Order: sequence, then structure tokens, then C-alpha cells
Amino acid sequence: MANEVTARIISIGDELLIGQTVNTNAGWLGEQLALIGIRAKRVVTIGDDDQEILDALASADENVVLITGGLGPTKDDITKHTLCRFFDTKLVRHKDIEASIVAFFEGIGRDPLDVNRAQADLPEACTVIPNDRGTASGMWFDRGRQVFVSMPGVPNEMKAMMGATILPKLRTQFQPPTIVHRTLLTTGLGESHLAQRIAGWEDSLAKERIKLAYLPSPGMVKLRLSTYADASAEAARERVDRKAAELYSLIPDLVFGEGEERLQQVVGKLLKQRGQTLSLAESCTGGYVSHLITLVPGSSAYYTGGVVSYANAVKMEELGIPSDMLELNGAVSQPVAEQMANGVRQALRTDWSIALTGIAGPDGGTPDKPVGTVWIAVSGPDGVRSIKGQFPGSRHLVIERSALAALDMLRRRLLPSGS
Amino acid sequence: MANEVTARIISIGDELLIGQTVNTNAGWLGEQLALIGIRAKRVVTIGDDDQEILDALASADENVVLITGGLGPTKDDITKHTLCRFFDTKLVRHKDIEASIVAFFEGIGRDPLDVNRAQADLPEACTVIPNDRGTASGMWFDRGRQVFVSMPGVPNEMKAMMGATILPKLRTQFQPPTIVHRTLLTTGLGESHLAQRIAGWEDSLAKERIKLAYLPSPGMVKLRLSTYADASAEAARERVDRKAAELYSLIPDLVFGEGEERLQQVVGKLLKQRGQTLSLAESCTGGYVSHLITLVPGSSAYYTGGVVSYANAVKMEELGIPSDMLELNGAVSQPVAEQMANGVRQALRTDWSIALTGIAGPDGGTPDKPVGTVWIAVSGPDGVRSIKGQFPGSRHLVIERSALAALDMLRRRLLPSGS
Repeated sequence: MANEVTARIISIGDELLIGQTVNTNAGWLGEQLALIGIRAKRVVTIGDDDQEILDALASADENVVLITGGLGPTKDDITKHTLCRFFDTKLVRHKDIEASIVAFFEGIGRDPLDVNRAQADLPEACTVIPNDRGTASGMWFDRGRQVFVSMPGVPNEMKAMMGATILPKLRTQFQPPTIVHRTLLTTGLGESHLAQRIAGWEDSLAKERIKLAYLPSPGMVKLRLSTYADASAEAARERVDRKAAELYSLIPDLVFGEGEERLQQVVGKLLKQRGQTLSLAESCTGGYVSHLITLVPGSSAYYTGGVVSYANAVKMEELGIPSDMLELNGAVSQPVAEQMANGVRQALRTDWSIALTGIAGPDGGTPDKPVGTVWIAVSGPDGVRSIKGQFPGSRHLVIERSALAALDMLRRRLLPSGS
Repeated sequence: MANEVTARIISIGDELLIGQTVNTNAGWLGEQLALIGIRAKRVVTIGDDDQEILDALASADENVVLITGGLGPTKDDITKHTLCRFFDTKLVRHKDIEASIVAFFEGIGRDPLDVNRAQADLPEACTVIPNDRGTASGMWFDRGRQVFVSMPGVPNEMKAMMGATILPKLRTQFQPPTIVHRTLLTTGLGESHLAQRIAGWEDSLAKERIKLAYLPSPGMVKLRLSTYADASAEAARERVDRKAAELYSLIPDLVFGEGEERLQQVVGKLLKQRGQTLSLAESCTGGYVSHLITLVPGSSAYYTGGVVSYANAVKMEELGIPSDMLELNGAVSQPVAEQMANGVRQALRTDWSIALTGIAGPDGGTPDKPVGTVWIAVSGPDGVRSIKGQFPGSRHLVIERSALAALDMLRRRLLPSGS
């Protein structure tokens, strides 16, 4: 579109190119820009190399260029020198910044070295952006209709700078068109089958100027609707809301949440609403479901605990599985899964319980029960139910996928309809 | 150096630009290339946009161009069409690939759709690279002295393809100078204190033409030694081995493994060697230690299971913690941690046990026991010992760091010296 505001992100650092550090800054910046209606078109990741940095700056035709990294006190950090060359300016000592660096070091009980004080040497042509969490200042350059901003690569310093100064300044300067998003989270059907199920509806999006993106990750597919607010943000929001409601009505069984929600948060919210509690009995998932649940702050309100019954002896003693049941059916079986769920629910006196028993691989599969076979049981006030899943992929993926399937099974039981 | 082989990585996907997915592929690829002596000069991340992809391809002057993403079956995935334009070729149906796609879907009990079969339509001018974990094939193009390789963005599919086919092929075709590496894994000391402890030794590396990299990640610091094999690979290996031995002798207490080893694998190996077993009692880590241990294939040989005692009632009933002990000391205390360890070891009749109880945050901290306070106890044949940790960071990081500290505590107990 005509008045679109675009951005390039330049991530500088040898460590990013050789996998020492994962570049999480770029994605975060892209997300923050999107939220104020600026579209990141390109991320360029390069080493601490003068010529590479110059190339990345010179080839930028986007409105906004955000640069992170290479502002440390050591010799290999060259970004500000290269910026001086690019903008034909020179470094000057900023006394106020030097004073804040000295104060910063006093705060951690150290004396600043000369290299630390030299971080107060900044390009004459820039507007200095203060860093209240570290010693590397940010730099803002206007050039024609473009803006270039250089920030430290340390995530929390960069993020604080963006939030306090840079995002508000970009918004004022560019007044970008608003983008409206909604993301529905689905589980239970792969990307291509999901696409087939909503194909007819998907064709109706173009004339509403709405884009749909499929974002698959293990065990789930996110569906993101987005549109530009050409006329008013309200009208765009209304268009997206209407299409999101249509989409939901097509696949109510598959949608478990929205936006950044996680399945374990949705389950936790439902349990809280009902004032009910949960316990777990895990075999093949080895504590992973419990880990997911306890990643949610405040989960102790509904989660009392669980048993990881890796050995059969633990299944018998802690969960009351009769030894003849194990012998007759094997540990990976419907009766064992159901008894595990009932056993832990009884032992820990909770309203609900989930149990998983299966073969995560790579070994242990049989023709009858190949790797990826997992029995999942959910026990609750209205009894126990179970399903057999067959999950593809590595050991890690079988664990991940069966955990999500188990959480989704509980979620469905907790819905008012109790499907 | 003159015969240096360089690479560009092109990551394609709207989701990477807006922060929905973190680009972990690029760093992994850079690392793998570095290991065979190819230097990643630049990562370019762009959306699913024809013109952007063409620009990124056309501007590449590196020897090797690795492209990931945009090969899914849905409409928004356009990479292979753009590749056809760039290489002036057309898509043709590969019957053998189609057959393997059909077989893949049979394996998971589904019928392939037309869009799935269409993933067998591949550029005529490329060498097809098989994907044994999914349905999107890789594509290898030679153009003059350059190689372009397109791969799916799904990490495990891409990694399998790189390992089985692409890295060996690149090595044969470019014969990059050999790099010899060794990576020692340390835990127990932060990066800067570690650097201080080995500073003198580090100065001796330059004259051996060995580079040392500090690679910190939560709970550990990897130390990587690397050198080019100028004369012979054997001589370079010998140089690196000698320096690695010196390094180990300086910090034997901190080194827990090498290369890609994980702490839980090291612990598992030690338990196996001793023919001993392990159980767990987790409170604040909520099953995460159990999850780490059971990620290791074959862990059922030494791990019998555990109890996640999130609620105090579970601590009392499953682990035999007296209620007055909880009242007197609080759940986050030395006596409770030690009794948890003894209790689970007794209940599950194992040789060893680990217990953790702490405050993962963000709520629940007090002036006396701030967020990040974690008591860790290890119980074994020679009694129970415990330490109090104070771990910084978010809920997730407190869980991660205390889990690694607990595993390391057990590891030390399992060493012949039993430190």
C-alpha cells in the first residue's frame, strides 16, 4: 500500500552467525514494529565487519532501519565507528553520558576502566538515546526521509530503550497505518487438512482485504488474520472480528485459544473458573505435562502434583495398578492408562486427573504397538475416558505432541458442553 | 584467507519477521557450516514474497546459499515457484517422491490431499534431496561456482537433510579448509569469573593459533577451542587436544562433559556404569528435572520415577513430610528438601534421589526467601546432602537453572571422588 511504513532490522555480531547466540532480538523488534503498524521487510544478520555493516546500511531502502549489537567496550565492537563513516561525522565525548557510566559502575561497586568511559564517545550527528540498564547508549540518525537507530544487542537494554524512547518516537514521526491482527490457536488437525476444511471460507478473505497465515508448530497450528486499517481502526477491527467469528464457527472443536495463550493456560483458566483441581500420572511423557502446567504462574491454585511412574513398580505401588493388569495388557494399554488416571486422582484427591502411557522411542516399539503409540486417559467427576494416539516424529516430538493432545482432551472435558 | 568458502543463509517466512517464530534455524546452520570450515557471512530473513526472495537470491555473491522455509503445501508458501523463475526452469511431477508422500500419509493413517501430492512437483533443473521426516523435498541447484540449496523450515526435517545429504555434499564439492574443534561443557561458574580463572592459560593460545570462544547459556558455559588445520589435520588435532587437556586440568570441578552432551546424559551414563537407580521429588521445578532425564533414550534403565509435590498435602502423604516440619520451617527449607529426598528414595526404593523445593516466582517471594531461592537435596547410599541456591531470572530461568544445578550436584556425588 501507498503509505506503508517499512523497516529493516540489522543484527550485528559474529556470535549470531555461528549459532552461539540465537537472534531473538530481530523477531521481537519485528513484532513490536508490527504492533504499531510498521512492517519489517527484512532482517540482515552480519558479523562485526566494517564493510558488511556499510553494505547493510547503504542498501537499505526501508523507512526505518533498526540496528542492534556491536556497541560493547571491547575491540571487536565497531558499530559506532562504522556509523561515523556512513554518516560522515565524528565521535565526541558526552560528559553527561560519561557521568552516568561512572555512576553505573559505582552502583555495582567497580571502577570504570578507560574503555568503559569511552562508551561516552558518540557520533556528533546523532541524537543520543539514554540506556538506563547499561553503559552503551543508543543513537538516532535522521537522513532524508529515513531513520536509522543503533541499539545495544543485550536484549533487556534494547527492549527498555525501544519501549521508553524509540517506539513512541517512530510513531510520532511516521504515523504508520494501524494493522489489526487476530490469531486463533488450533490443535487436533494438521496444516493441510485444516486448510481443506476452511478452503471455501478462505477464498472469501480477499475481498475483505484480510490475509490469513498458517503458523504450524508441534501439536498445533496458529491461524492469523490481519488487515490494514485503511479508513478507521474500528472498521478494520470489525472486519477482522467478523471473519474470526466465522472461522471459529467452522472449527469450534479445533480452536483452543487466541494470541499468545498456551494450552496449559487455557486449561488452568478453566479449572480456576470451576474451582477444581488437577493431578497427573505420567509414564512416557516423564514429567513434561507437569512441567508445562507449572510453567504457568499461579498454577499451584489448581495443580496439586503428580506421579511420574516410569518403572512398573511405581505404577503398582503409587497408582494401585494390579500386577495382573500389567501382565495381561502391558503397560501401554487402555486399562492401565485408565487405572493410572483413577489411581492418581484418588491418591491426590483431585477433581480431575490425566494419565499418559506410551512408547516415546526410539526403542521399545513392537509391530502391535509401534513407537508413538500413546494411551491418554482423563478421569473426572463424571468418570474416566481414554483415547489411543499415534504420534509421529522423534522421541522429543512424541512427548511434545502427546502432552498437547492430553491437555486438549482435558480442555474439552472442561468446556460447558464437555465434548 | 584466500581459499575461504563463504555462505549466505536465506530464511523465508512472514512468521519470522513478526516474531511469531524465533529463527533458530539460521544459527544452527551457521554453526554446522563453521564445523566443516565454511563461514556464514550473512543471514537474510524475508517474508513469503516473490520479489524479496528474488532480491535475496540475486544479490548473493557467497559460494553457498542455504534457503529455508516456504515449502509447505499451502498457498502462502511460494519458494519453489520463485526458484523456478530465478533458475528459469519449471515444475515437474516426481513419481518417486509422490509415492513417498503417499507412504508418509499412510504411515500416520491419513489420505494425502492433492496439495500434499503437489509437493512432488519440483523444479526440473534441481537435484532433489529426499526428506525422510516430512513431505517437502529439498532442492539443490548448481550455478557456475555457486550452490543454492532450498530446504523446509521445519527444524527437525531441515536438520536431518543437512546431516544426511547437504553437509557431506558441500564438503566434497568445496573442500573447505578443515577446522578442528573441541568444546568443554562447564557449569557452576559464570562467564566472567570463569574467564578470570583461566586468564593466564588463555594468553597461551595465540601462539598455538587456537581460538577460544565462551558460549554461555542458562546454567552453563561452553568453552570451544578451534583451529585451522593448515598443515595436517592430525597436527591440528594434537594441538587442540593438548590445550583441552590443560584446560580440563585447570577446572576439573567445573567441566561436566564435551560437545553436544547434556548434563542428564552424563548423569545417566554414570548411573548406568554403577548399575544404580534414581528417583525424584520436585516441587518448584514441577517435573522439569524428570522431563530432562526422560528425554534421554534408555533412561528407564536407571530412572524409576518421581513425585511432583506441588501441594503441601502431597509432600506430607507421598513423601512423608511431617506437618509440623512444614509449619516450623516452611516448604522451602533445608529439612523439607532433605526429607523429600529421603522420602522419595525410600518410597521408590532407589539408590539415589534428588529433591527440589523453592520459589520460582514471579509471586511468592518474601524478604527472607526471595524469588529464586531453591533448596536442593541429594540423597544416596552415603546419606543426604543439601545446598541453597539463589537463581536469577524469570520463572522459566529459575526452573532451568535450579534443574541444572540439581543434576550437577548428583553428578559430583557420582564421580569416583564423590565431591
